[in-house]
Amino acid sequence: MTDVLIILFDYSGTFAFSVSGALAAAEKKLDLFGALFLGFVTAIGGGTTRDMMIGNTPVSWLQDPVYFYLIVAAVALTFLFTNTILRFPKALFLFDTIGISVFTIIGIQKGLHAGIHPPLAVMMGILTAVMGGIIRDVLCNEIPLIFHREIYATACLAGGVFFVLFVFLNMPESFTALIAAGVIFTIRSLSVRKGWALPRFK
Amino acid sequence: MTDVLIILFDYSGTFAFSVSGALAAAEKKLDLFGALFLGFVTAIGGGTTRDMMIGNTPVSWLQDPVYFYLIVAAVALTFLFTNTILRFPKALFLFDTIGISVFTIIGIQKGLHAGIHPPLAVMMGILTAVMGGIIRDVLCNEIPLIFHREIYATACLAGGVFFVLFVFLNMPESFTALIAAGVIFTIRSLSVRKGWALPRFK
Amino acid sequence: MTDVLIILFDYSGTFAFSVSGALAAAEKKLDLFGALFLGFVTAIGGGTTRDMMIGNTPVSWLQDPVYFYLIVAAVALTFLFTNTILRFPKALFLFDTIGISVFTIIGIQKGLHAGIHPPLAVMMGILTAVMGGIIRDVLCNEIPLIFHREIYATACLAGGVFFVLFVFLNMPESFTALIAAGVIFTIRSLSVRKGWALPRFK
Repeated sequence: MTDVLIILFDYSGTFAFSVSGALAAAEKKLDLFGALFLGFVTAIGGGTTRDMMIGNTPVSWLQDPVYFYLIVAAVALTFLFTNTILRFPKALFLFDTIGISVFTIIGIQKGLHAGIHPPLAVMMGILTAVMGGIIRDVLCNEIPLIFHREIYATACLAGGVFFVLFVFLNMPESFTALIAAGVIFTIRSLSVRKGWALPRFK
Repeated sequence: MTDVLIILFDYSGTFAFSVSGALAAAEKKLDLFGALFLGFVTAIGGGTTRDMMIGNTPVSWLQDPVYFYLIVAAVALTFLFTNTILRFPKALFLFDTIGISVFTIIGIQKGLHAGIHPPLAVMMGILTAVMGGIIRDVLCNEIPLIFHREIYATACLAGGVFFVLFVFLNMPESFTALIAAGVIFTIRSLSVRKGWALPRFK
Repeated sequence: MTDVLIILFDYSGTFAFSVSGALAAAEKKLDLFGALFLGFVTAIGGGTTRDMMIGNTPVSWLQDPVYFYLIVAAVALTFLFTNTILRFPKALFLFDTIGISVFTIIGIQKGLHAGIHPPLAVMMGILTAVMGGIIRDVLCNEIPLIFHREIYATACLAGGVFFVLFVFLNMPESFTALIAAGVIFTIRSLSVRKGWALPRFK
């Protein structure tokens, strides 16, 4: 049951990330190929980097075709209805936040299962959540947004540490995963509402 | 016989892609190291990304030293005879088009042999053809050309779908590979002559 | 004994590369997450790319947590004492040069142990030394410094060829590694003092 929820959240996040990639293409007035490429890279860039680093190959999305069809659908819809989608920023924010929460926890699980030192597994989780957006920004010739305007790395870190601790206390993993994703979701939502930010270089 | 042809085409494409990388370095007034790095990345970036994603390691060009010597020769020639080479754009276009045609088919074959879902194998083929040029453009601090001026992704897609269909109809693989590469070559050549382009965001 | 020295040099280099990543973040006025990300990428980008290409996974730094703590410490110190660190450019140069010397040799060793053609193993060594800085520059939206102002690729090449030759002459590997790293260190230091540079496109 909790596993089904996690898969549903994973798909929602993939969808939201693809839309965000396609919207970046819209902003740069790219063509349909650019939109597809950016949609894919944003959605699967984090998990792909993680899988290549821990040696989990073929990488996850090559083993479950659902991602492929989800991303193509998300990009096509964004291409056809760009303006409509831009009118619902709160829905996008909701799916995006669900996405990073679940991506982080899935990334940590894959790291732990590969036998990686727990703090490094937390890093793999954060990488899963942030790397797609970073590659998207680099391909659009921008300094990654997340480097100068904290978006969600801290929330991922907090939820990730929580998850690892409770797994080590032998809590049931998939239930803990859901709670930890909820922690990330909550911190992230609060931080946007309150305008929390990380310190910057002076 | 057909296999030998495919290898020859693969080498021609590698050579042309290396020249294109070195020419990008020339345009940015880089030094010899920059030219070598861009030559390598353009020539082997696509196949390397594909191999790392499907877990085919060490990646292909590390297993066949011919690529290494071809790329070094192509970059050295481009460095020494930049202006002469720029006088033959049609020859460059020819080799480049041979290259992407063969790179696409080889990429699909490696994907299918790794047991990947056929539409995803076609994506691996397109990735093999386009990723080198994308990394080259990112390293030169440009938005990848292929994102806003369709070059060959559609041709690769058409030839790739053709190839996968005929392989599934049990046609002999290496013969079908040659025909499919020919399809890509033809569509690509026509699209340049006729000025075909993908729709863009408005 | 020589092995311990190599590990110590490897850690020094990792530290120096992390500082260089964090300083790049300081220059662009990024936040703490940006500094950490750039510190990590600069320090482990080269080895990670190499490991993913030769199939040595999980990549090295995921198998030895010392790197993680070293990098976090280096970035934290740079964040807190940016101006103090900038007052000691010679110390930074020293550690950085130790780093690239050792990174090159370690990269070649991993390539040779993976059974790769020796000239390609030398390339893996150079990649280990240069790729972190290249990714750092791309993430900062700059054309990589090393592409237009030769920094150390030639020194890495010379020391790398030396190393491979002596290994093939059956010299004891870890002793030869130290000498070869010394060759790189010396050439690199001399080239900076004398202003040596590679030829550029005209």
